[in-house]
Amino acid sequence: MENVPYKIYLREDEMPKQWYNLRADLKTDHAPILNPATLQPVTVKDLEPIFCAEMAKLELNATNRFIDIPEELLAIYRMFRPSPLVRAYCLEKELGTPAQIYYKFEGNNTSGSHKLNSAFAQAYYAKEQGLTSLTTETGAGQWGTALAMACSYFGLKAKVYMVKVSSQQKPYRKVLMETYGAEIIPSPSDTTAVGRKILAEHPSSGGSLGCAISEAVEVAVANPGTRYVLGSVLDHVLLHQSIIGLEAKLAMNKYDIYPDIVVGCAGGGSNLGGLMAPFMADKLAGRSHPYFIAVEPASCPTLTRGRFAYDFGDTGQVTPLIKMYTLGGGFIPSPNHAGGLRYHGMNATMSQLYHDGYLDEARAVEQSEVFKSAVQFARVEGILPAPESSHAIKVAIDEALKCKESGEAKTILFGLSGTGYFDLSAYAAYNAGTMTDFIPTDEELAQGFSYIPKLPGIQE
Amino acid sequence: MENVPYKIYLREDEMPKQWYNLRADLKTDHAPILNPATLQPVTVKDLEPIFCAEMAKLELNATNRFIDIPEELLAIYRMFRPSPLVRAYCLEKELGTPAQIYYKFEGNNTSGSHKLNSAFAQAYYAKEQGLTSLTTETGAGQWGTALAMACSYFGLKAKVYMVKVSSQQKPYRKVLMETYGAEIIPSPSDTTAVGRKILAEHPSSGGSLGCAISEAVEVAVANPGTRYVLGSVLDHVLLHQSIIGLEAKLAMNKYDIYPDIVVGCAGGGSNLGGLMAPFMADKLAGRSHPYFIAVEPASCPTLTRGRFAYDFGDTGQVTPLIKMYTLGGGFIPSPNHAGGLRYHGMNATMSQLYHDGYLDEARAVEQSEVFKSAVQFARVEGILPAPESSHAIKVAIDEALKCKESGEAKTILFGLSGTGYFDLSAYAAYNAGTMTDFIPTDEELAQGFSYIPKLPGIQE
Repeated sequence: MENVPYKIYLREDEMPKQWYNLRADLKTDHAPILNPATLQPVTVKDLEPIFCAEMAKLELNATNRFIDIPEELLAIYRMFRPSPLVRAYCLEKELGTPAQIYYKFEGNNTSGSHKLNSAFAQAYYAKEQGLTSLTTETGAGQWGTALAMACSYFGLKAKVYMVKVSSQQKPYRKVLMETYGAEIIPSPSDTTAVGRKILAEHPSSGGSLGCAISEAVEVAVANPGTRYVLGSVLDHVLLHQSIIGLEAKLAMNKYDIYPDIVVGCAGGGSNLGGLMAPFMADKLAGRSHPYFIAVEPASCPTLTRGRFAYDFGDTGQVTPLIKMYTLGGGFIPSPNHAGGLRYHGMNATMSQLYHDGYLDEARAVEQSEVFKSAVQFARVEGILPAPESSHAIKVAIDEALKCKESGEAKTILFGLSGTGYFDLSAYAAYNAGTMTDFIPTDEELAQGFSYIPKLPGIQE
Repeated sequence: MENVPYKIYLREDEMPKQWYNLRADLKTDHAPILNPATLQPVTVKDLEPIFCAEMAKLELNATNRFIDIPEELLAIYRMFRPSPLVRAYCLEKELGTPAQIYYKFEGNNTSGSHKLNSAFAQAYYAKEQGLTSLTTETGAGQWGTALAMACSYFGLKAKVYMVKVSSQQKPYRKVLMETYGAEIIPSPSDTTAVGRKILAEHPSSGGSLGCAISEAVEVAVANPGTRYVLGSVLDHVLLHQSIIGLEAKLAMNKYDIYPDIVVGCAGGGSNLGGLMAPFMADKLAGRSHPYFIAVEPASCPTLTRGRFAYDFGDTGQVTPLIKMYTLGGGFIPSPNHAGGLRYHGMNATMSQLYHDGYLDEARAVEQSEVFKSAVQFARVEGILPAPESSHAIKVAIDEALKCKESGEAKTILFGLSGTGYFDLSAYAAYNAGTMTDFIPTDEELAQGFSYIPKLPGIQE
């Protein structure tokens, strides 16, 4: 193992040519997505007014374990992939741990995160279908930027509903997306019926991903040639993001490395599931037994304090129903700086894996601890991490310090999903000692749960 | 050439283990740096109160063509190097040019540019010498960030004088440097005698690199255990930056590629000289004849409209005298957004090469054209470039379009020295159509030239 370099890059001809469909290997398939009007499993036809046709098919009908990445898309991926798998030698030395720490770094592209993997895929299929315009929501802005870049590349219009509190915290995110030709609207807005309704009820609302999704879906359905795309939560997004884990595993194979612990930050599940997918496949098949940890903000504790139930993906209750861990579509998280993790739900496949115990543990952490780890990491590894990714850093460091106590030389893999160049107002608050933590009370959670629908014969 | 990948990475064990000293191969050595008090060539002893001892020695006494990179520094370089050499397939397609365009991309690190190459080197030698603190100036903030990162790594204090107009344009740069533990002072400031003098004469001054240097030098000389470090202009910085060109050449060698045209943006010369160095060595030795183009902002036209004369490196006239192209140390450029190019002078070695015709051409371009090229590049290559680097992009595109007209399949190499994440106020101005161009009048230049010292027996 002496010869492991600081960064392991695959050659371009070694990059995966297929995505991996984790759902195909589930021991217990997750419950079907339901049409809220009929409470029957949703059909491709139901979804087609909202989503690109190919995305609807992938979401509902993908049963193959591996799905080809189109040739043109493979060429585009080479603009920003393969991403490096980094051996955190400097962090290991700083911690004095016998653990070997690796991270898959997805931040070396202008969107600043892994989101570009799915944005280019979804824009590609939209272009193939002859669509002219896409709508979406964004929290931290990484998904919005990724979609703006992909739409710019394919000559599609992009309309991005950005969670209002994030748009205020990150004015330059807006400029970046506009530089790529996208139109940005802080959400809730008065441009949609659902936005106006939310504003009427909560005039000072800072918004949430759930609200922004409702607005973006409403606009997509109402306009010809337009569809809605989503950067997380759905299985087809996880499919695109499986390239993270596939590359990580191939890079590790080169040096005969295998993780004992896999750590990912948990928002809607795209980075989490993408990183874990091929290692989870090994666990499901009994080939190996890595320990999986999902890390979420204590301010939005979907897995650790949420319910496993059918719920809407949005606040306005316009989406299909997904059986998932949820805090309730009406749960508006306090303005945690990790905007990308401020979502009430979790991907259905990852929810099922957590429910069934294959995703071993979810851990909720407070943001001031997260930023402490982020700064420690930045100073020795030379990368300013995104607040979202820093949730994984915090737990990777904690696990490495446990190894220091126990003397175990475990191999820890975590996902460094993005960079924090647009999160410097949060870093400024941390530097100034004015960062506060937010933990919802049981009453606040109960308020969120009240939005989870009662479905006769399915859930009360 | 069919098999050239999108990104050519060297393996870590292929990375250069020596820097290349371009000065050693000059046909006519540049004039010696002078002590302004004696008008005699400056000695290491003269420089030691200002600079780290090893930097002073490298600056004055380096005659070897190759100089070993210390082992510990090689290990640190692996945190963020090798950097990719990118084949701009998407840009070529967009332009419809037969030219083959390559760029060496130095922006994939948190400082956002090539500056980290020299920052880590200088901080390493400072630590070796037992110093405790470093002072410097920064314009765009890339050098300041790089030095903050390097000082943080080695446990040194960093005090950064940031050109006031840049600090106003880029508030988050300050936060980023502070996150790495640096102290940031907008310049001109009242913390130094020279700053107070400049403020008294020009109370509303937006500052310049020349002013900020004066302040940083004053503080370094006045405080024990403290030295001044510079991110450009001097030969030892070019030496460190030669790793850019050395890596680019090794990467090209792998695929039997050699540039017909080499384009770099020109501020103080660090990126320009670093990229060009090994190719210039070939030209000086008659082994090849690439055409070299230095691109500077029309608002700060050092090479195209400056004088080749001895001048101070700063505004306060506290530095040694360098024979270089200069607009005069008192020239305060208008607030062009490319803060890293707002310097009145140019490295002596690069000045000599331009004077002697080996650096074939300098071209001044206006910033609105530069941003037009930057956005075109960002949309197809997926990287948001720094305004400084975008000067090189603009000319690379122009040259590729000339190839389209002539039908020539030239190979163009340019330096993409950094990213523009902290330049979004400039992009916002460009997007809004409110960006203006600045071209100094002959009278304004004459005003600057009046600061060039008259030196009895040397220059009148």
